[in-house]
Amino acid sequence: MSLSAILARIDDQLPTALDRLTGLLRIPSISTDPAYAAQCDAAADWLVTDLQSLGIKAQKRRTPGRPMVVGHADGPGPHLLFYGHYDVQPVDPLNLWHTDPFAPELQDTDQGKVIRARGASDDKGQLMTFVEACRAYKDVNGALPCKITFFFEGEEESGSPSLIPFMKDNAAELGADLALICDTSMVAPGVPSIASQLRGMLKDEFTIHGPRIDLHSGHYGGPALNPLREISRIIASFHDAEGRVAVDGFYEGVHEVPDDLLRQWENCGFDEHDYLSSVGMTQPHGERGYSTLVQQWARPTLEINGLWGGYQGAGTKTVIPAEAHCKITCRLVGDMDPDALRVKIRKHVEDRLSPDAKITWNQDLDGSPAAVMNINRPEFEAARQALSDEWNREAVFTGMGGSIPIAGYFKEILGLDAMLIGFAQEDDAIHSPNEKYNVQSFHKGIRSWARVLDALAK
Amino acid sequence: MSLSAILARIDDQLPTALDRLTGLLRIPSISTDPAYAAQCDAAADWLVTDLQSLGIKAQKRRTPGRPMVVGHADGPGPHLLFYGHYDVQPVDPLNLWHTDPFAPELQDTDQGKVIRARGASDDKGQLMTFVEACRAYKDVNGALPCKITFFFEGEEESGSPSLIPFMKDNAAELGADLALICDTSMVAPGVPSIASQLRGMLKDEFTIHGPRIDLHSGHYGGPALNPLREISRIIASFHDAEGRVAVDGFYEGVHEVPDDLLRQWENCGFDEHDYLSSVGMTQPHGERGYSTLVQQWARPTLEINGLWGGYQGAGTKTVIPAEAHCKITCRLVGDMDPDALRVKIRKHVEDRLSPDAKITWNQDLDGSPAAVMNINRPEFEAARQALSDEWNREAVFTGMGGSIPIAGYFKEILGLDAMLIGFAQEDDAIHSPNEKYNVQSFHKGIRSWARVLDALAK
Repeated sequence: MSLSAILARIDDQLPTALDRLTGLLRIPSISTDPAYAAQCDAAADWLVTDLQSLGIKAQKRRTPGRPMVVGHADGPGPHLLFYGHYDVQPVDPLNLWHTDPFAPELQDTDQGKVIRARGASDDKGQLMTFVEACRAYKDVNGALPCKITFFFEGEEESGSPSLIPFMKDNAAELGADLALICDTSMVAPGVPSIASQLRGMLKDEFTIHGPRIDLHSGHYGGPALNPLREISRIIASFHDAEGRVAVDGFYEGVHEVPDDLLRQWENCGFDEHDYLSSVGMTQPHGERGYSTLVQQWARPTLEINGLWGGYQGAGTKTVIPAEAHCKITCRLVGDMDPDALRVKIRKHVEDRLSPDAKITWNQDLDGSPAAVMNINRPEFEAARQALSDEWNREAVFTGMGGSIPIAGYFKEILGLDAMLIGFAQEDDAIHSPNEKYNVQSFHKGIRSWARVLDALAK
Repeated sequence: MSLSAILARIDDQLPTALDRLTGLLRIPSISTDPAYAAQCDAAADWLVTDLQSLGIKAQKRRTPGRPMVVGHADGPGPHLLFYGHYDVQPVDPLNLWHTDPFAPELQDTDQGKVIRARGASDDKGQLMTFVEACRAYKDVNGALPCKITFFFEGEEESGSPSLIPFMKDNAAELGADLALICDTSMVAPGVPSIASQLRGMLKDEFTIHGPRIDLHSGHYGGPALNPLREISRIIASFHDAEGRVAVDGFYEGVHEVPDDLLRQWENCGFDEHDYLSSVGMTQPHGERGYSTLVQQWARPTLEINGLWGGYQGAGTKTVIPAEAHCKITCRLVGDMDPDALRVKIRKHVEDRLSPDAKITWNQDLDGSPAAVMNINRPEFEAARQALSDEWNREAVFTGMGGSIPIAGYFKEILGLDAMLIGFAQEDDAIHSPNEKYNVQSFHKGIRSWARVLDALAK
């Protein structure tokens, strides 16, 4: 049967699809709180049952934490691995919710209808767009257009502790040609987006030790080395006046954005003014000479995430503290090597220490390279065309400022490129009170996947 | 009768003087803990009784907190106001004491005999050196050599909240020609010391506000202004590479140490190596070109006492925080004006803020100028000679890195210069477990005051 019949079926069945989503949203599958372990189990069971109703061989799979759901469906086309997560963020502060977070409501808003509940957007609503597209294929054609492995985890909101071991233990079973992930946003309302590059991350933390003990700033102020001044001087040395990172060799492996991609970004509907003003800024503060979007998606950063030492209480304490502490993360792009970069950053810091200052580094923090997808693979262009058709708007290969570790793990452990397609809106309030998912995101998301599957099957 | 008879009486009566001190030390007059209010009262009563036994009109005087003790003795010479405090620090951690802190013990050590108890040095032992010197005069001559007002407080270890109101309310009664304070250390063992300059203090605190809310360092890292980088850059700008404060006009009112005073300091027995190495330093870190002692006593500082923002817990949080905080104190010398300096420092900071950064200042923090005694007054040279005679060692006009607010208050409220003479040793462990006072400090301290009173009476 033709794609148009599939799409018609999706339109017809939207109310029942929303009913099903409502059922999944009623389950408070909060993964960070052990008190909700049974509810996570129930959400996994719900998905297993739903996949089985499509004729998919699905199972709940034990881990030391929350279970995985793995399902296998045979099909004619390429072998796809679809990933989503059924766990949700905690709901506090509950008093800021206008409705019960686990009693989903359809509401009319100036964006049209939305479904409001914890997990509506992140990620239950999004993962169900793919499942509903598959259901339409099943209903209309009696079969899926591709061979598909479904892979849902229940610990994404709590750091995915079981994910890597599970992927390693089941690498053969999870093998495929391409991974699909539905857990991202559209770059602007109505602009279909495929995230094709995600920044990597390097974490580090150091403590500068000065005097042997906390000192009285009267008795020792002047002669004493003050670790708070020392750490401030070192942090200040990380960047030059142009906003560039001044660590020697920091930009090795960084590539300029190709012109054609840059043109896509310039026309992707990203509203720089909205983006900046929503957080109280009037201008971008990163490397001079790069646009806000390029600073966010395609340039590396070295940020201070925590800084502390000395007295933090009310009033004054005349102390020169023995220690000062600093937490760093870098966002990585291109081919930047986190291990090599860690060495460079540590050298930069240690080269600048005063006599009598000592340093210790946290040895437990890791790093991961940027994930840059091979958008020259024909599947990427096919998917982009499919999305453009659905949204009547040229789809865009976007970057992402954040890091989605799963994309890197798919590459590293399973050897898979990942295509990240999502329909969330920036204002969906994921991780916040009153989370919602636009019914249009859900409806056109299902239609989008139907078109993408159709295109990939060819 | 001659001074020698007075000194002989002091030598004779040392055992009974130690007995008396032991009696005062048995009273756990901890002022910070309201549970010991009755014991503070008892210590005040003890002093009233002891002063009355010398024929002094002494009274316990109510305050909203712990009582003051004020006593008046007529005499022929100049009118002196002697200040000390009968309250003591808490004793915890109690498990680190080798004896009961309120069961004083005489012990033999490699420094000779010591009396070990909380308050032995700070300040009961020290204040009793003066009272015992007066007793010897009374015993031998039947009268004191000068007109003396005794003024003891019981809140010195808890911030002296009642002191300023009491001094203001009783300024006429507390008037005198010169204040004497016995609450300081000798600059080195055996080196009699008159603290003639104390650094003042300016306190300030600011918060730098960047983004409207805490931001995700992936989604905003690059374009976002990071207040932790901002505050580090500003703190780093406070000092130049030579360790000088780079705030415009900071050094206004700072004077170089006169050559003759500098020579005294160079020969005062201060052991720079001991001082530095005891806190883990190999060199002074203040302004280049000044000795450790000059950096500590006679140069101003701008120190960071607290610095914080962002995430301080275990592991990583990818946050760009909305705020960063910093607590500052400056130590002031010479004629530095705290109010004018506050304006200069705030201007320095505000001139360096990035666009989109905002700043708020704590408006509740005060400042006080340095206290520089007029050592050209003949009483200072007379006292210095008296101390030199007792210790067979040239007495030294020292500075102090810290601030003793009472010295400033005497000047400000009562119009009095203060002479700070003390016999404590750096290793007396004041505020720490196993506090002690050398019996030699006590004995020669009494003799020192006898000589000083004799000299001042002339």
